[in-house]
Amino acid sequence: MNNGVFNKRTILLAGLIMFFVGSAYAEKQQVLPAPNGIEIPIGYKNWRLIGITHRTDNKSLRVILGNSAAIKAVHSGKTNPWPNGVILAKLVWKDRQLDTWPAATVPGDFNHAEFMFKDSKKYPETGGWGYARWKGLDLIPYGKDASFVQECAYCHKAASKTDNAFTIPALLP
Amino acid sequence: MNNGVFNKRTILLAGLIMFFVGSAYAEKQQVLPAPNGIEIPIGYKNWRLIGITHRTDNKSLRVILGNSAAIKAVHSGKTNPWPNGVILAKLVWKDRQLDTWPAATVPGDFNHAEFMFKDSKKYPETGGWGYARWKGLDLIPYGKDASFVQECAYCHKAASKTDNAFTIPALLP
Repeated sequence: MNNGVFNKRTILLAGLIMFFVGSAYAEKQQVLPAPNGIEIPIGYKNWRLIGITHRTDNKSLRVILGNSAAIKAVHSGKTNPWPNGVILAKLVWKDRQLDTWPAATVPGDFNHAEFMFKDSKKYPETGGWGYARWKGLDLIPYGKDASFVQECAYCHKAASKTDNAFTIPALLP
Repeated sequence: MNNGVFNKRTILLAGLIMFFVGSAYAEKQQVLPAPNGIEIPIGYKNWRLIGITHRTDNKSLRVILGNSAAIKAVHSGKTNPWPNGVILAKLVWKDRQLDTWPAATVPGDFNHAEFMFKDSKKYPETGGWGYARWKGLDLIPYGKDASFVQECAYCHKAASKTDNAFTIPALLP
């Protein structure tokens, strides 16, 4: 009886592992790594919300999501500096006016997904963060070579007093 | 041996159930139901992203999250009409300019959380949706009595061609 249960469990477990590995492989196959070797994090679209931004200078709307380390950091108020292991995802759309409420700006075309990986030992030359960006719905890696991160790090220096991250976690109940 | 394992499992399981029931109870205790009897959905802050909005008419930023039925509807492209069982959550903050990037508008004070519950049989008089709103970080129920939903339904008529929901799911890779 127990053996039977174990066999069913083993089969179920093996099936689940195959399913997740299969899903991961399928997702990895579709998206090439950034020129600095950073791979797009699996499952980022399921991450929890940290903040949103409307940039009126380039007419884009942005959502910032965080991995579990980021959410833990937000809950414990330790976001300046953000701890190693944190990944922040930013999803960016071009502005669009909502037909049914013209004073509302909503996401239009998807522009890009970009990520910051906090690892102060691995990325000391870019403020402790590894950067990567993928363009459009096809998620084409951004940058001709690994030096593209200088562009990211340069711009993020404007947020040096908040650990080079622009994101301030939104207040939630 | 097996009994020992089972006992540990039983204790662990009982502990987990107590933890989740306890968490749910703690959350329910803190937030009163809306005047129409609708209770705030548990765990809505963990729901997946559907869209965002910047309303320039009342200077507020909004995130729209959906329960699993809503996410399923988005993935299958069945959002007009949205199926029964869908819950859309809208979290609303007042505009704030970001110190480190003044052309960026980000969430300031938390204003309210509001919800739409699709049930065409239960809510035929308000376009098939049950409405509820909770104000501020303390999540105080909105409305003097159950008639507050007329205000919601009246405004949402502007989105009658999209099932009385303003939200159009954001394009994602």
